[in-house]
Formats: sequence, C-alpha cells, structure tokens
Amino acid sequence: MTLTVVGSIAFDAVETETDKRERMLGGAAVHFSLASSFLAETRVIGPVGDDFGEEEYAVLRERGVITDDIEHVPGGKTFFWAGRYERDVGIRHTLQTDLNVFEHFEPKLSEASAAADTLFLANIQPDLQRAVREQCTAARFTALDSMNLWIDIAHDSLLRTIATVDCVILNDGEIRQLTDEPNLVRAARNVLELGPRVVVAKQGEYGAAMYTEEGVFGLPAYPTADVVDPTGAGDSFAGGFMGCVAAHEGEELTDELLRTAMAYGTALASFNVEAFGTERMQTLTGDEIAGRVAELERISRFDAAPLALRA
Amino acid sequence: MTLTVVGSIAFDAVETETDKRERMLGGAAVHFSLASSFLAETRVIGPVGDDFGEEEYAVLRERGVITDDIEHVPGGKTFFWAGRYERDVGIRHTLQTDLNVFEHFEPKLSEASAAADTLFLANIQPDLQRAVREQCTAARFTALDSMNLWIDIAHDSLLRTIATVDCVILNDGEIRQLTDEPNLVRAARNVLELGPRVVVAKQGEYGAAMYTEEGVFGLPAYPTADVVDPTGAGDSFAGGFMGCVAAHEGEELTDELLRTAMAYGTALASFNVEAFGTERMQTLTGDEIAGRVAELERISRFDAAPLALRA
Repeated sequence: MTLTVVGSIAFDAVETETDKRERMLGGAAVHFSLASSFLAETRVIGPVGDDFGEEEYAVLRERGVITDDIEHVPGGKTFFWAGRYERDVGIRHTLQTDLNVFEHFEPKLSEASAAADTLFLANIQPDLQRAVREQCTAARFTALDSMNLWIDIAHDSLLRTIATVDCVILNDGEIRQLTDEPNLVRAARNVLELGPRVVVAKQGEYGAAMYTEEGVFGLPAYPTADVVDPTGAGDSFAGGFMGCVAAHEGEELTDELLRTAMAYGTALASFNVEAFGTERMQTLTGDEIAGRVAELERISRFDAAPLALRA
Repeated sequence: MTLTVVGSIAFDAVETETDKRERMLGGAAVHFSLASSFLAETRVIGPVGDDFGEEEYAVLRERGVITDDIEHVPGGKTFFWAGRYERDVGIRHTLQTDLNVFEHFEPKLSEASAAADTLFLANIQPDLQRAVREQCTAARFTALDSMNLWIDIAHDSLLRTIATVDCVILNDGEIRQLTDEPNLVRAARNVLELGPRVVVAKQGEYGAAMYTEEGVFGLPAYPTADVVDPTGAGDSFAGGFMGCVAAHEGEELTDELLRTAMAYGTALASFNVEAFGTERMQTLTGDEIAGRVAELERISRFDAAPLALRA
C-alpha cells in the first residue's frame, strides 16, 4: 500500500466573488496527497523553497503523508500561483504564476519512493514524468496528468510518456485537444491506442467518465450547492482514485475496482471544493468520505426494469 | 396512456462536416412524438402548411402517432429551419428560420387531446403554453420546455407558466439563465420553488440531471462515437421521459419511476443523433431501446463497498 506522487508544491492566492486568501498551501502534489492519504500511505515528491516551513510540513504530516522526499532548495522560493474565480466558479483567471524552484525541478526518487506500488505523475513537463516513470520499475499501476501547455509545446514527448503509463487522467477538453478529436468517445479510444488501458476524463461539475477495454463508466459529480474554491479539485480527484487503487495492492485491477476508485475520486474532489485550499481536507473524516461515496451510489442508481414497448 | 404534445412541426435543412439534407421532417413536436410513440399513444398538436403532405403524415402515423389535431393552415407554409453543425457537433449555426404558419399558431385542443393524462408543452411562447395547460384540467403530469428567447423577452410569463406545471425540462444553461444563478444545484432548487416538483437539466453529451424534493439523480449520456445530427435530441429526450411517465398511467409518480423515465429519455435521445432528422427513429425497434436502457444501467453502476479509511 505505497503510493508515490510527483508534482508541484505551492503557495496559492485565491479570490472569489465573496472572499479571498492571500497565501495558502497548494499545488497538485499537495492536493493529491491529502486526498490519497485517506486511502493509502502516500509519499510526496516536489520542490520547495526557504519560505516553506514547519506549518506547511505539519499539514501534510498530520494526514500521515510522508514528506521525506520533499526537496528543499536552499535560497529558493516556493512555486506561487494567484487566481481569481468569477461568480460562475467555472470561469477562472490566472493573475500570477511564479515558478520559482519549480522551474528547474528535477525529481529525485529515494529508494522507498521508487519502490512504490502505485505512482502518480502530476502535471509536470512530460520528459520529467517519463524519467520518473522509468525509475519506478516495480509499479503495478501508474497514471499521469498533464495540461494544455504540454499538449501544445511538448506534444511528442507527452505521447511517448503516455505510452509508458497504465492510466491517463485528464480534463475532457485536454483529451480532445491531445487527439484533435472533438468526440470524447473517439478521443478516449485514440488515447487508449497510445498504450494506457484506462482513460479518465474529468468533466468538472458534470462528473467524470472512464474508458477501458471493457467499455465506458460514467459518474455524475456530487451536486455541491456551495463551491467555495475549485482549485485542486482535479488533483483531489486523482488522489482519491489512485489512493483507492493503492489500497487494493496485490489485488487484480478489475473494472469494478476502477469504478469504485472513480467514486472515491469524485467524493474527495467534492469535499476539496467546499473550502479554500486545503482547509476542508484538514477537517475531513473517513466517515464523511464513506457517506459521500454511498450517496453517490444513491444519486446514480436507477431501475432499468423493461417496459412493454410499442415497437 | 394518453400523451399530448403541443409544439412545432417543421421542415429542417441540416449541414454537417461530411453530409447534408436539404429538407426533412423536423420540429420539436415531431421529434418528441416519434420518441414517445414507443412508450405511449401520443397525440400531436401543431400547425402545418400546404407543403406538408401525406409523406410527412405517414412518418408519424407509421409510429402510431395520432395526427388528428395537426392544424393545416390553408395557403400557409410549414415552419422551416436551416442549420449547420461544425466538426465539433456541439457548435451549431442557425442559417435560416422561417416561422411561416408557426408565427400565428394558436393551439386548439380537441376533446381527446385536452383529456390527456400526460401533457408536454414543447418550446412555444409561454402565454400559449399556459393557455394549453389550463385546458388540460385532467392531466396527472405536465411538463414544459422553453428557450433563451422566452427567458429574455417573456420572463414573467414563463415564470407564471412554470408555476402551473409539474416538471420543467430545460438545458442546464437555460436553467442558470432563467434563475440568474451559475450554480446548477441552486438554480434547480430555485426553479423547484416556483412550483414544479421535478426539474430536469439536459446537459447534452454529459447526460442529464433530475432534481426533486427527494434529491438529485444524475445519468451520463450514452457514449456515442458517431453523432451525425444532434437536431431534436432534447425533444427526443423529453419524448422518452414523458412517454415513460404516460406508460405508467394510474401509478404513483415515485422518484424511482422518474429515474427510469430519465433513462428512457437518455436512450431515445442517443438514437435520435445517430442519423439525420427522423431517419433513425423510423427504423428503431423496441428491443434496441430496451437494450440501450440496460446498457445505461451497466454504464452507470458501481460498487460503493466501503474501504478501511485512514482517518
């Protein structure tokens, strides 16, 4: 039950229509590992600067996240991102991006990290993702995220990296862009042909869909009336999904298990957006997660009892 | 098991990236009634001109649709719409709209139509919808569709009409626009407060969500790799949904029944988009529909078996 995640660790500033935070813990690897920590022991790999202190380490450690492989760059500053959400939180404006120590990040894996059963490559340059992937020779299940920037400027490298992982977890728009195919079903099939056996399309407020050889699974998002801060929702989804896979170490990765993983991803993402940054994850309990997964099952269940059709 | 639908009957011209049709049977009431005809006897009410002939009537009658209340306007021309879809069929351009006899349509209900158990008010001016609603005093379940135009220019009338029906079936964007509320969960709740006890949000390729007092139901769309012509998908959805309700005349309208209706709506819409205009509906069989509803159940099912969480 060992899960390694490689990605950004950040400070975020977020404004919404009604509130804001000037500086809070963020970054893909942080959102991922806080979510996955409820399901599996998680090692986080990413760079931080001198401004990253005990308070930030404590948030991760209190959730049992193993921070030994966080790389402190002396004299450096931690990645900083500032954004603003409109009243419609589906619309986001990036106000500032300071890569800082993240700009020259070269992931170094300890022996323990490289021995992970389950590996998640959060959104970093695809050459770096591939280098990490090649070090994790024992991994039973590997997945990656990416972004429009790499699809644009490092397309071939991204395709090569995708060929080395078991699973791709992207926004549906990114899957369309990657394959230049507007129909998501075809686009996902095209990604499956690149090598992975699982493609997960994150669809924001609409939920998520999973494509495998066995077919399609679709799950609506949990209906949240008060979305406070969507930052990190996709990473929390990936954390719940991969955490669930890691929790089943040694078991066969059936479609049924992957569907359950989709539900945990959906549940974790839904909690993440209920408060700013990592605030909700810090108060979350296992009972709340189990309750929401059960609620997702109720939300999506129906009776297909056949009718007498007038054909 | 009597279902009445009031709405447009049209000729459509549709262009896609790879094919086109110069003139084919269309209109909301047509797409609706062909879909609902598989589930319940359907009476269709709408105006046509001299250009609407036996060939068009035959398409409806071959599916058992009762055309007695189609109003022939002597000397008039049938509503005509022309549109073009981009390679991404989610993007549609209207090229021409000739309202013709639809411009001065005033629905007249026969005794049989007014006695309907189930009534669907397709997208027409909301004052007219309300006038029809008031004539159907025996209806057990009534629903309406609308569009951005009426939300803009006849907002108060639309709100008054919504207060008289049991169910609203709109695109999610229309529900947000109607309530000026970007969060769909809140927007749907706001519509419930206007009077209806069911709000259905159509979400195109993402599926559909239903909001009632008992909570939320979400169903993904059927994953179609070859969307030929999306025209009328929403009307086919409404036809499948309302047809399923009408097929259960005399039964209590439980949440479970309404969820099954959502599945029939989703299935019928998915067939509609597989060919131009009404072409697919004309070859569709009851077995195909039952098969797809069962497939939707497989697509959306997962096991919420609880895990040992590390809380």
